[in-house]
Amino acid sequence: MGRLFGVGVGPGDPELMTLKARRVLASCSVIAYFAARRSRGNGFTVVEGLVEDHHDLLRLTYPVTTEPVDRATYERSIAAFYDCSAESIATHLEAGRDVAVVCEGDPFFYGSYMYIHQRLADRFPAEVIPGVTSVSAAAAAAGRPLVSMNETLTVLPGVLPPDELKEALAGVDAAVVMKVGRRLRAIRDAAAACGLGDGAVYVERASCAEERVLPLADTEGIEAPYFSLVLIPGTGITTR
Amino acid sequence: MGRLFGVGVGPGDPELMTLKARRVLASCSVIAYFAARRSRGNGFTVVEGLVEDHHDLLRLTYPVTTEPVDRATYERSIAAFYDCSAESIATHLEAGRDVAVVCEGDPFFYGSYMYIHQRLADRFPAEVIPGVTSVSAAAAAAGRPLVSMNETLTVLPGVLPPDELKEALAGVDAAVVMKVGRRLRAIRDAAAACGLGDGAVYVERASCAEERVLPLADTEGIEAPYFSLVLIPGTGITTR
Repeated sequence: MGRLFGVGVGPGDPELMTLKARRVLASCSVIAYFAARRSRGNGFTVVEGLVEDHHDLLRLTYPVTTEPVDRATYERSIAAFYDCSAESIATHLEAGRDVAVVCEGDPFFYGSYMYIHQRLADRFPAEVIPGVTSVSAAAAAAGRPLVSMNETLTVLPGVLPPDELKEALAGVDAAVVMKVGRRLRAIRDAAAACGLGDGAVYVERASCAEERVLPLADTEGIEAPYFSLVLIPGTGITTR
Repeated sequence: MGRLFGVGVGPGDPELMTLKARRVLASCSVIAYFAARRSRGNGFTVVEGLVEDHHDLLRLTYPVTTEPVDRATYERSIAAFYDCSAESIATHLEAGRDVAVVCEGDPFFYGSYMYIHQRLADRFPAEVIPGVTSVSAAAAAAGRPLVSMNETLTVLPGVLPPDELKEALAGVDAAVVMKVGRRLRAIRDAAAACGLGDGAVYVERASCAEERVLPLADTEGIEAPYFSLVLIPGTGITTR
């Protein structure tokens, strides 16, 4: 029976992969990765340089991306996709082949690998290799300490409705808004409404070649990709 | 003029260091690290295998640890310590030597490096190498997805007073309580009071040889070290 690995490969820069991730990827027979239609897959791009002749590649293509579909259709479609993906992986595992599922960032921090883990970890030996998140990479890129001492950090997805965003940001010590995409303006408004606009930083594709760092207040007119986030650093560090 | 690097070396297992951290550590003349009195330093333990003859080691020993001192004395003492540490590092940088400041986990996520960055980043070129946090390592060790989809994650230090802990945990989707130490019981009580006790997991020294993973409910009588945390995973993943 093969072993299943959920391999966090970090935020984008291949050099931000861990030594363990590299070793496990090299040792597995199968490298599985998620990719949107008509995309090479961000995770695959990170590990591409490590692919060798002995590797079988298993591309798992998301059935839906940003096309508008109703919620029930989306959920049915995505659940069926994870079921099928898990079965493709299980076939390799049953044949005794170790499978590495590539996951950008960290597998258990908003990663798609968890849906595979959920379906297979009770049938096969499974191990997760933690990775550097885009949050850490973004704070490093911005040169801004995120959270210190006794501060609380709130991490929330930008897809929340505007009023929930505002409610979630009210009174935070430090916060990160993930998956910005089309919600950039709503996030900027919510941060400003909570008096957090001044120190906030927008970071796009942290650690990648296309990385971009801007004060949140200067992002008007910007089309943010899904892989961007807003940092609201804690202020505790500023008091000596 | 030398360059300053804040190097996240990950949660404890040297294999969870990134390729970039390893490269930067090898290339620097000086490796600086924080350590408590009568301790070898957790960060130093992680990088020990990488130290070569060309490296100068700079040990920065915290002046206070867990001895009870009043708040004002503690703050004055720790600020003076960071001032002196920064000046020791600055001396090397002025002499043209690159300095790597070792930081467990990620430098800008509750890391001591930020106090050096704050004092020197406007005088010298400074770069932060993000690292794998103990949060990611703990979720991997527990085999529990931490946060998925549209869930919010709240990260808070266990040192908060019990009533603030309870308030902070009320209604969270997912949470991590860091720096457990002597607050284990208060955290267990707060989680139970918020109806979050069942899924919660206690993780001690994630990814280290002495790693320990237990359901939070089974931790009565345990003496938790400072380097332990409690995971309250989101439940979104359990609904298919």
